[in-house]
Amino acid sequence: MNDTDYMKLALNLAKGTLGQTSPNPVVGAVLVKENQIIGMGAHLKAGEPHAEVHAIRMAGDKAKESTLYVTLEPCSHHGRTPPCSDLVIRTGVRKVFVATTDPNPQVAGTGIERMKKAGIEVEVGMLQQQALELNKAFFYNIQTDLPYVTLKSAASLDGKTATATGESMWITGEEARNDVHQLRHQHDGILVGVNTVIQDNPSLTTRLETGGKNPIRIVLDTHLRTPQNAKVITDFLAPTWIITGAEVDQKRVEQFTEIGIEVIKSEKQQIIIKDLLVTLGKRGITSLFVEGGSEVQGSFLKERAFQQIITYIAPKLIGGKLAPTLFGGQGIEKMAEAVLLNIKQVDMIGSDIRIIAEPK
Amino acid sequence: MNDTDYMKLALNLAKGTLGQTSPNPVVGAVLVKENQIIGMGAHLKAGEPHAEVHAIRMAGDKAKESTLYVTLEPCSHHGRTPPCSDLVIRTGVRKVFVATTDPNPQVAGTGIERMKKAGIEVEVGMLQQQALELNKAFFYNIQTDLPYVTLKSAASLDGKTATATGESMWITGEEARNDVHQLRHQHDGILVGVNTVIQDNPSLTTRLETGGKNPIRIVLDTHLRTPQNAKVITDFLAPTWIITGAEVDQKRVEQFTEIGIEVIKSEKQQIIIKDLLVTLGKRGITSLFVEGGSEVQGSFLKERAFQQIITYIAPKLIGGKLAPTLFGGQGIEKMAEAVLLNIKQVDMIGSDIRIIAEPK
Repeated sequence: MNDTDYMKLALNLAKGTLGQTSPNPVVGAVLVKENQIIGMGAHLKAGEPHAEVHAIRMAGDKAKESTLYVTLEPCSHHGRTPPCSDLVIRTGVRKVFVATTDPNPQVAGTGIERMKKAGIEVEVGMLQQQALELNKAFFYNIQTDLPYVTLKSAASLDGKTATATGESMWITGEEARNDVHQLRHQHDGILVGVNTVIQDNPSLTTRLETGGKNPIRIVLDTHLRTPQNAKVITDFLAPTWIITGAEVDQKRVEQFTEIGIEVIKSEKQQIIIKDLLVTLGKRGITSLFVEGGSEVQGSFLKERAFQQIITYIAPKLIGGKLAPTLFGGQGIEKMAEAVLLNIKQVDMIGSDIRIIAEPK
Repeated sequence: MNDTDYMKLALNLAKGTLGQTSPNPVVGAVLVKENQIIGMGAHLKAGEPHAEVHAIRMAGDKAKESTLYVTLEPCSHHGRTPPCSDLVIRTGVRKVFVATTDPNPQVAGTGIERMKKAGIEVEVGMLQQQALELNKAFFYNIQTDLPYVTLKSAASLDGKTATATGESMWITGEEARNDVHQLRHQHDGILVGVNTVIQDNPSLTTRLETGGKNPIRIVLDTHLRTPQNAKVITDFLAPTWIITGAEVDQKRVEQFTEIGIEVIKSEKQQIIIKDLLVTLGKRGITSLFVEGGSEVQGSFLKERAFQQIITYIAPKLIGGKLAPTLFGGQGIEKMAEAVLLNIKQVDMIGSDIRIIAEPK
């Protein structure tokens, strides 16, 4: 194991906790002395000890004169836990490798400064790209106060999301559907349009073999048409928020609020996606998973209101001029107006292809 | 270099000639003695020497007691050239590695038998999968007398082939378009519908930096609507065949035949894809590249009349409920009726994703 290997391990520790640390970032730490690991840890949950604390605790007395590999700059402020940079100094760590600085304005380099002043050798930037990628939602949210938006879609190789008669189950295989549940687990909120609720009556929960955290369910429903007996209303497996236009019948609103469903009225009669994202950001949604349907996705596309798109392509051909496809709405007129993407990753998930892309 | 390395080299020699050997297969040969290459070659063009001949000529006197690595079983029949298996025997080759036997009923193991009888050690099957893959069109054609059909399509990540207003240039990038020209070079025939000719007026020629062989241009045109001034009619860069229904005006037919354009009438008024493929097979088209448009692709899909589909996915989003998509026609009603595919290969071609799949 060399320095990079230890940092890779720290990144893997962090990766394992994706989805459970919000609104905090995921962080991993490895403590090494004489080329042996003496401590390791990850931040597990907001309010609980940071990664460095776990690693230092595990090392105990051996921690003095050790080298710390940590995926994110140790904090310098008193939040829900005392500053980690102070603990690192007090412990007598000799050298610290930091993958990336913390964009949190309350930290932003001050943790590193503190440690350097105390005589610790600090090296910043090892495997930085991977570290940034891992916390991209966190970093985006902390800099914009908006949720990091991921559009999810699934289609056949010929771009159809259902047959001409509307049958859509299942386009993709079991592995891809499991992958989607893993993504639900990693997001604070999941968003669909009311038509999806009416047509498919989905539960929008996370169903993984090992359980999983349910995101808050958010339904775009301008005219408050969500059925009272929809699963997202009756199953109480996760909070459900209904986003409506400004003018909806107050009596109907109360039918929902009485049973604990939040109804959030927009300022205008039309729901403006960018305004909605400000609202969701204020309510603590740091990451939003948009599952559809195609008109909702079309709205996010039209307003360029997304940071990532994950597309599953199933190895099948459906055909049909009238079969529904991804992204409804008006679309663009000129090819030059197309939203350009960077393909970040292409993988096989079972027999389906998964494409992860970001707007350029 | 070990045995497998030599065979890989032979396969690469063959691969380089894809597109120039039709109706013959591509074949590569490497001749080795005392772990040194003493000869190599590939079959370059129908009627010219086979790969083994080139390799043995290059080796000259040294060929005695050597080992031959050849991607396809040496032939045993007098075709346009004398049988290669006899030459191998006469030359005094000691051992022969054959990647795959020849499915050509005139050969089919007899070349191997001949060499074995002459006391040569013959090993069959090294890198067989790759060898079969390389000549899949040839093998399919020789066993069915039908052209090997490849459907080509290109779409945005959201499955659109053009904007809502019909603008389609360019969906994909330059590298992907070059890749398409490479594929045209490798096919005997290229097929489009008359609507594509009317709307886009394509030349359907191979335009590679290094030149390239033009496929025969085949237009599906039930009612003989191809414009007299279309590029495929006026540029004379490659033969053009127009496929019509049974009932078309003979005068109009003659307007085309007079200038050397073949008009091939179907037996019925509607063009039946499977009948068409029989006709094309009889006329020596061993491989057919179907470029579109979406209704033509839909017809091939409906009749399950294809062996391969190559899809380019561009890193852009177009959106729009009315934007055209891949594969028109009626399509299927039930998800269970979808044409299932095996994904064979996924690559980045420039900034586009290329997916090669085969029907299951």
